[in-house]
Amino acid sequence: MLIVMHTKATTAEIDAVCQYLENKSLQSEKLPGSNRVAIGVTGNKKAVSHDQIARMQGVKEIIYVTHKYKKVSREFYPENTIVNVGQAAFGSGTNVIIAGPCSIESKEQILASAKHVKASGAQILRGGAFKPRTSPYDFQGLGREGLDLIHQAGQEVGIPICVEIMSIKDIDLYAQKCDMIQVGARNMQNFDLLKALGKLNTPILLKRGMSALVEEFLLAAEYILDGGNKNVVLCERGIRTFETSTRNILDLNAVALIKKMSHLPIIVDPSHAAGRHDLVLPLAKAGLAVGADGIIVETHPKPMEALSDANQQLDFKQFTQFMESINSNKPKY
Amino acid sequence: MLIVMHTKATTAEIDAVCQYLENKSLQSEKLPGSNRVAIGVTGNKKAVSHDQIARMQGVKEIIYVTHKYKKVSREFYPENTIVNVGQAAFGSGTNVIIAGPCSIESKEQILASAKHVKASGAQILRGGAFKPRTSPYDFQGLGREGLDLIHQAGQEVGIPICVEIMSIKDIDLYAQKCDMIQVGARNMQNFDLLKALGKLNTPILLKRGMSALVEEFLLAAEYILDGGNKNVVLCERGIRTFETSTRNILDLNAVALIKKMSHLPIIVDPSHAAGRHDLVLPLAKAGLAVGADGIIVETHPKPMEALSDANQQLDFKQFTQFMESINSNKPKY
Amino acid sequence: MLIVMHTKATTAEIDAVCQYLENKSLQSEKLPGSNRVAIGVTGNKKAVSHDQIARMQGVKEIIYVTHKYKKVSREFYPENTIVNVGQAAFGSGTNVIIAGPCSIESKEQILASAKHVKASGAQILRGGAFKPRTSPYDFQGLGREGLDLIHQAGQEVGIPICVEIMSIKDIDLYAQKCDMIQVGARNMQNFDLLKALGKLNTPILLKRGMSALVEEFLLAAEYILDGGNKNVVLCERGIRTFETSTRNILDLNAVALIKKMSHLPIIVDPSHAAGRHDLVLPLAKAGLAVGADGIIVETHPKPMEALSDANQQLDFKQFTQFMESINSNKPKY
Amino acid sequence: MLIVMHTKATTAEIDAVCQYLENKSLQSEKLPGSNRVAIGVTGNKKAVSHDQIARMQGVKEIIYVTHKYKKVSREFYPENTIVNVGQAAFGSGTNVIIAGPCSIESKEQILASAKHVKASGAQILRGGAFKPRTSPYDFQGLGREGLDLIHQAGQEVGIPICVEIMSIKDIDLYAQKCDMIQVGARNMQNFDLLKALGKLNTPILLKRGMSALVEEFLLAAEYILDGGNKNVVLCERGIRTFETSTRNILDLNAVALIKKMSHLPIIVDPSHAAGRHDLVLPLAKAGLAVGADGIIVETHPKPMEALSDANQQLDFKQFTQFMESINSNKPKY
Repeated sequence: MLIVMHTKATTAEIDAVCQYLENKSLQSEKLPGSNRVAIGVTGNKKAVSHDQIARMQGVKEIIYVTHKYKKVSREFYPENTIVNVGQAAFGSGTNVIIAGPCSIESKEQILASAKHVKASGAQILRGGAFKPRTSPYDFQGLGREGLDLIHQAGQEVGIPICVEIMSIKDIDLYAQKCDMIQVGARNMQNFDLLKALGKLNTPILLKRGMSALVEEFLLAAEYILDGGNKNVVLCERGIRTFETSTRNILDLNAVALIKKMSHLPIIVDPSHAAGRHDLVLPLAKAGLAVGADGIIVETHPKPMEALSDANQQLDFKQFTQFMESINSNKPKY
Repeated sequence: MLIVMHTKATTAEIDAVCQYLENKSLQSEKLPGSNRVAIGVTGNKKAVSHDQIARMQGVKEIIYVTHKYKKVSREFYPENTIVNVGQAAFGSGTNVIIAGPCSIESKEQILASAKHVKASGAQILRGGAFKPRTSPYDFQGLGREGLDLIHQAGQEVGIPICVEIMSIKDIDLYAQKCDMIQVGARNMQNFDLLKALGKLNTPILLKRGMSALVEEFLLAAEYILDGGNKNVVLCERGIRTFETSTRNILDLNAVALIKKMSHLPIIVDPSHAAGRHDLVLPLAKAGLAVGADGIIVETHPKPMEALSDANQQLDFKQFTQFMESINSNKPKY
Repeated sequence: MLIVMHTKATTAEIDAVCQYLENKSLQSEKLPGSNRVAIGVTGNKKAVSHDQIARMQGVKEIIYVTHKYKKVSREFYPENTIVNVGQAAFGSGTNVIIAGPCSIESKEQILASAKHVKASGAQILRGGAFKPRTSPYDFQGLGREGLDLIHQAGQEVGIPICVEIMSIKDIDLYAQKCDMIQVGARNMQNFDLLKALGKLNTPILLKRGMSALVEEFLLAAEYILDGGNKNVVLCERGIRTFETSTRNILDLNAVALIKKMSHLPIIVDPSHAAGRHDLVLPLAKAGLAVGADGIIVETHPKPMEALSDANQQLDFKQFTQFMESINSNKPKY
Repeated sequence: MLIVMHTKATTAEIDAVCQYLENKSLQSEKLPGSNRVAIGVTGNKKAVSHDQIARMQGVKEIIYVTHKYKKVSREFYPENTIVNVGQAAFGSGTNVIIAGPCSIESKEQILASAKHVKASGAQILRGGAFKPRTSPYDFQGLGREGLDLIHQAGQEVGIPICVEIMSIKDIDLYAQKCDMIQVGARNMQNFDLLKALGKLNTPILLKRGMSALVEEFLLAAEYILDGGNKNVVLCERGIRTFETSTRNILDLNAVALIKKMSHLPIIVDPSHAAGRHDLVLPLAKAGLAVGADGIIVETHPKPMEALSDANQQLDFKQFTQFMESINSNKPKY
């Protein structure tokens, strides 16, 4: 930590800061510059209250040196973490594809999806049971019944399932029924939920909040790892910016950066980032090109009849082409 | 709703859209322009699936005419809603001040705060029991014990209390202990929690998510009103933008706009918007000048020893001056 | 400057950085922490290339201690700068109001505006001659003729004028005709223009770019001061964020902050921030409450016939009420 | 255009709007809904003043149907525009690579760069002569001399050059010396400059402003096309968001979208988007995967001695590897 003093800070003010640090058993080093003094803090084994020092007389600014996350950091654990879900191994160098409808709508719909998803070569089936909807008047999902339907479809077809959890009260149910539990963007900082998921062994798909900093995203994952569950797969799903011509912006800078900063696998979600089916394939290709470990993508037997997000879901024909294009050895460049 | 067709849409494509609408019992009106046709949809008593139509051949764009919220809208309920908490009446034309420490830290701390807050003329005591913290290594609050301490302090001093709820599993406890329940920015779209709060009568202080659109903010309130609880006070607490010189930006455009669009009271939180104590007073004044119904502000007996957000909390002397300045008849202009 | 090394940086890498600094005649101080070493750089009279060091082996991050601006900083010049334009004195403690139409449209229109603006108590007349328009098909302003018209109106009525400059090639013309030259948001980083304006003595109204950082805004002003022109008034006019319910968000955090960081006067532009006339007054009040030194506001004799921004301009009756409300001794709180 | 009336708008107010439209020779169609009336405007051959109508009594909102751009739109010109610069053909299906140092620093530096860039297979040489720098105290470029040096290097080596123009006063010089003229992000809405460039035939590389909407970006290009110059190549170079862990975010949603909306070629700039050399290659690959027509990338003989942006420039060895990786037939997926 570096404490930057005002140009007009008095010697007494500077000494008071050093004294405060000494009282907290921290070593400090004065760094006189041409206009002002800075104070370097060393030997801090635990976090120092940045906020308290910021209030002291003569202090202009505090600069953090260390990131707050540890267990998710590649600096501390250099090897890739591999998360296994059924046959899929996130982080192993092969692309994992999670696919399925936005919402589970009926037994027929989810079963047909399970079959088509598996037949096309994707490794995991997704589908929403409890749906987070901006408006109370929108379809809220089939709930518990939906969870049972996707569980049965997964069993029948032989494909692991990934379902979004909305509430901490459903955690036992999800642990029992799901091969992978998704935390949606709106719950990325639902800390009670993260703590509870940290006590499971079930793999977690943690989506980035749509305005979460990379640091906050990694700290949300740190909550789960710190609880004891190391099976975390990150997911970049688009961030909210000033631009409204597409729903969100897929942040591939973050994907490239996180591959360097963290040992956790990370996948991308082009369906939610784009919000429209005709941009899903190019964004998926871009995600893999930048180094993502896989894709989560929405497909529905009849998008025209879908009860949610009809416009971003691929129909089965489009999905088959999508998988062929992703697996092709002849991309554009 | 208006459906904009491509310039090259065929007659068959246009007719197919009209047929789709008719099948859904909706009236449509073709609006031929110089380059393209648009189709106006009328007589829609219920929501139409925007997403399904967006997929149809020849459709370029869908434009919504009506907002999705109703119960929070001033168009439908023109009079100000007044929310009473103890003696305070949000929305009645007088400023309501909610004040207290960021976190409840001890019996002495919260009791001293309760006394000072009341003596200075604020009407409601705040304090955090369960704390939403970005890092798992930061102070997480006293939890249940903290809630008991602020409850006792409120009773002893005779001031109503407002506490943030973090998890749906604590809802009965909060309903019992709190005069007003706060939903924090990170939980603005925790829809299960909103639905549960809609079944209470306790006044709710709903904070805007740091990247929530005004429309999403109002729809989150709609969830609570739709559940049956009309006692909702909105709170603008700063939005996340590209600018990092202060923690967030207090969005007073939104406050001015929401006063026009909704009948619900709205207050501002200059402490979280600024993140530093020396900007709290000017931002509070600006909030009241733009038309907010009150302020929520942090004060602590000894900010230098605070376990969270030390730099944004006013000490008691600053808080007394803050209240005098707010109540003064001689503002700058 | 603080150089943070990787946890696994070797002694040789650390020494190489210190050697590099010594070669540049800078003193360095190693600050060993529990996990890594940081290197404090002191005695830097001039800027060090942050970018070169960032490339060295073992370097994780560089942290700047000093801001790059000097001449605009209150740390170096603690007293308020006062900028005089006619009778108006920006920064002197009284509110300065600049008012007039968005575009100059005719002799009658600008003359009527000049008279009404002066009669209502505003001190400076504004009006656009060369207009920056997003689309080439929108009204582009009367250009040179418009400049002549506002110049004549100002002379006839006896009120100083403020006009936006669009191009460095018009600089002599503007220096001759205008009492104050406005640099629009889109030109805030038109550095050639800033340098040229630095050589004049004419007061400059420098608008913040709609996505400019406070630091960049102050550095743009630094260009003008560094050229020799100290008569700079800053103007916050709304920033671009994810929120689209109003055109931009008036960033009053920045106004409160800049009053602390810089000695230059700063005013706010509620017309452009809101984009709609019914929000202009509350935002103007908020701007003054937070500490701005004045307001720039649009008014037009017949907004319904305005050739640009019709919806944000106050008509004359509204403008008279606006001035009364601003000058009233009985604001809401 | 669609005009949405308030729920409580009177018949007189609705009729007044229709009358206004009739006076402007526009046809209108009332669209009665369940709660309110909307008015569809048809037959508009030219733009209608959205702003004037927005002020009328009873009007709630105006919704635009048509985009303002035409000449850049794929709806009107469906075929890809191909822009030729030397041997390079932007938009023809092969990737064009523009490469070179951030700033031109000396004859030796730019000549060495020209040779290496050409030898590695890139088609165009870039280099900055007049540099847009945030701070007046940063290196401002060699100016006119720099332009001469890169011109000579290009001639000597036999490679076309692309240089950023900063000021309209240099336009003749640039037209004479450059094979392609770059408009930087900060000048994307320097409309006088765009108009002047519209009168040349020289190919223009137009960079997106860092907070420009896709619509504004296309309208900036429209200025140039409308002036008569059809040789425009767009460039996405990263947008400014709330995220600060990398300098900007490369917006590949925009690239995918613009390929659909416009016939103009578009390339990406991973160097400026990332701000650090180790993310340049993955972002470049992602850009090509999403469908960009080429890359502009920075390379410098000795990045450690670069006078600007040292950390984002590839050294020659890295650049050779970059070109091999881009041209390889075996990308990751």
